[in-house]
Amino acid sequence: MRAIGIGLVGFGTIGTGVARLLTENAARIRDRAGAPLALRRVADVDVKRDRGVALDKGVLIGDYRRLLDEDGIDVVIELVGGTTVARDVVLGAIERGRHVVTANKALLATHGKAIFDAAEKRGVEIRFEASVGGGIPIVRAIQEGFAADRIESVHGIVNGTSNYILSKMTAEGRSFEEVLKRAQAKGLAEADPTYDIDGTDAAHKLSILAALAFGYYVDLDHIHREGIDRIEPVDIEFAREFGYRIKLLAIARERDGVIEARVHPTMIPAGHLLALVDGPFNAIYVHGAAVGPNMLYGQGAGMMPTATAVVSDAMDIARGILRNAPRRGTSLSVHHRYLDSARFRPMDDIENHFYLRFTVLDRPGVLSRISGALGDRGISITSVIQKGREHMKSVPIVIMTHAAPERDLRAALAKIDAMDVVKAPTRMIRVEPALT
Amino acid sequence: MRAIGIGLVGFGTIGTGVARLLTENAARIRDRAGAPLALRRVADVDVKRDRGVALDKGVLIGDYRRLLDEDGIDVVIELVGGTTVARDVVLGAIERGRHVVTANKALLATHGKAIFDAAEKRGVEIRFEASVGGGIPIVRAIQEGFAADRIESVHGIVNGTSNYILSKMTAEGRSFEEVLKRAQAKGLAEADPTYDIDGTDAAHKLSILAALAFGYYVDLDHIHREGIDRIEPVDIEFAREFGYRIKLLAIARERDGVIEARVHPTMIPAGHLLALVDGPFNAIYVHGAAVGPNMLYGQGAGMMPTATAVVSDAMDIARGILRNAPRRGTSLSVHHRYLDSARFRPMDDIENHFYLRFTVLDRPGVLSRISGALGDRGISITSVIQKGREHMKSVPIVIMTHAAPERDLRAALAKIDAMDVVKAPTRMIRVEPALT
Repeated sequence: MRAIGIGLVGFGTIGTGVARLLTENAARIRDRAGAPLALRRVADVDVKRDRGVALDKGVLIGDYRRLLDEDGIDVVIELVGGTTVARDVVLGAIERGRHVVTANKALLATHGKAIFDAAEKRGVEIRFEASVGGGIPIVRAIQEGFAADRIESVHGIVNGTSNYILSKMTAEGRSFEEVLKRAQAKGLAEADPTYDIDGTDAAHKLSILAALAFGYYVDLDHIHREGIDRIEPVDIEFAREFGYRIKLLAIARERDGVIEARVHPTMIPAGHLLALVDGPFNAIYVHGAAVGPNMLYGQGAGMMPTATAVVSDAMDIARGILRNAPRRGTSLSVHHRYLDSARFRPMDDIENHFYLRFTVLDRPGVLSRISGALGDRGISITSVIQKGREHMKSVPIVIMTHAAPERDLRAALAKIDAMDVVKAPTRMIRVEPALT
Repeated sequence: MRAIGIGLVGFGTIGTGVARLLTENAARIRDRAGAPLALRRVADVDVKRDRGVALDKGVLIGDYRRLLDEDGIDVVIELVGGTTVARDVVLGAIERGRHVVTANKALLATHGKAIFDAAEKRGVEIRFEASVGGGIPIVRAIQEGFAADRIESVHGIVNGTSNYILSKMTAEGRSFEEVLKRAQAKGLAEADPTYDIDGTDAAHKLSILAALAFGYYVDLDHIHREGIDRIEPVDIEFAREFGYRIKLLAIARERDGVIEARVHPTMIPAGHLLALVDGPFNAIYVHGAAVGPNMLYGQGAGMMPTATAVVSDAMDIARGILRNAPRRGTSLSVHHRYLDSARFRPMDDIENHFYLRFTVLDRPGVLSRISGALGDRGISITSVIQKGREHMKSVPIVIMTHAAPERDLRAALAKIDAMDVVKAPTRMIRVEPALT
């Protein structure tokens, strides 16, 4: 029986998981793929550290370029991360006719089009299940499971760090800074968590989801991004009073060829399935015109869940190689053509319901002035909470609005925040009362 | 461009949805499959009824055998249902070298092995995404997304009718009979709902899930089945007091080559994702050794969700045909070999926590006798609710137990139900306090 040769570039956490799965589940993988998957070569700049996985002598090398040029490597697994070396690895592998498995969302979001075009030209396959949602098979679900349908929207909790922090803030009432520090101490957040916190990582994943769902590359510049660092315990508390939870959602929608894509904290009904997705878990809620709502839930990161997706992708390619048809024809390179006339809806035009927390002096007439400014822009109010009566001191007023375009909301807030009775910038969080 | 010829057998609800999708989404389907999917022939005993879908003149015929013998049919979609004509359709199509898409869980659960063996021999592909969970891509998820992993357990809400009835009973406090009658009046339950209510339909689906997850055909005789018809509003109310919801779960588990498979009402924590799966929705919770817990959620039945899965399967086969590799190598026919030494755990040996509702005379010493009988069999109690004090009348006593083997529980109940103070058969519902 022919073995499928695997070359692994990047021997960090996920790479170690991949080596473990290939070793520990070797018989199962062979039976299900139709041939053994042989880990022929592993490349990493650190060839010293003990990862607790036994590789045959000489398998681990320092220079990935040697791996790319070697015979007997059918599939290159890229787990370097980032967009520079990883790009060279992936394009180098494609150039040499190797198939590629990658977990690298930043790479695909940034250089996806070039990579998929190169792969199509060279006739090799790119699989990337692990790039969104870790072990959750969301890429297959959209590429194949819903292939016959027209996807209308995607709502994803796709950044585990943000979700862990929001969950902890919600459960314990602690501040963002405090929870982040504890998460870092426990190794649950990166030393530099910027991309997790500010929505960039989620935007990378949304770019991939939108491309799969709508067949169009969504440039990162078209994805509005807001992170979770400005969420305060008081907002979580008010959300609870209104029956909501706050989640960092990655949202994409398509209607009549117009696409919107955005990442921001969002209030969703406490009884919605997405509201129950806590801690480091991820979930992607997909709404199709025919299939209706679907949700996929699982661990969005971590060694073994992510490694499962990576090795399962390699097995898929192995099955294709054994049938002389490694390309399934489901890649973005094939799909992206059908919607090449897509336009993007700017954030200003997108309608949302809003949660607004004003910090105002507790004086008669303040609510009237604020609601007047909202009314001037056609924004109507669904409910108001005004708490604490402390004469001449700052108190919060919370207003929930009906749906209104972002442009009008921003104009009203600019006017309100300039009022002498308003003592701090107003906090705004978008609300999805129905979430479909 | 070559078109892929589709022959559809069974022009009922799902068949109509398939015809609609193939027509309305034709361009999208062509772009994503790589070739048009042409609905060449539709066979149904009823050639008169207007389904609201325009077929070309002469496409609809009464005799499926003509369809099977025609040229230009690459893929036969079987939507007849049942296990007799459907079997002839599927085996007839395979014999003639046609690929097959089916939504028929009863057929696969009953004749799966013969069908997959025949397909392998003839070199044709069988796809069956719609057979479990309607539009939910659970078959792909297990076959491919988790292919590298060892699945430990599957917990599924896979019968929409049962789930709808339990959800309504929970929300409205009505009896099983009353809710069933209303569901039938609304067309949400079949005129003869036996298979939905008694767990047979869920067992069919569990048989397929277990085969996918563990690589072994689970004969229906090995699946313990209990339906929802004996659940009373009072049990739902007690469950709520303990923090549980009652769901009809299809459960399969594998450990060291020993498989257990069963369908029964189960109390699960009210905060678990599965507890939120209401109405006609389905969800499958899969636990893998490496990937951890995953859940897929969506509409488990209905015209368009199910049709989406059927047409997506046909597109998958189309891609394979265009690459001269229609068989993906992921079918049960390939997988079922790796665990051919599986043994089955009899229900008697399976350990569960139990909810027990005794109907007893309100007399001193009754609780002591009951707990004594449980204790004699090594069953220990976690909590007791005793309500209503009506001297010399029947009152309920509810006991929650620690985990114990079914055999011991049944022996204890036999003894208890024979006591003179016990006035009705004790109601038992299994409890999953952790659900992993």
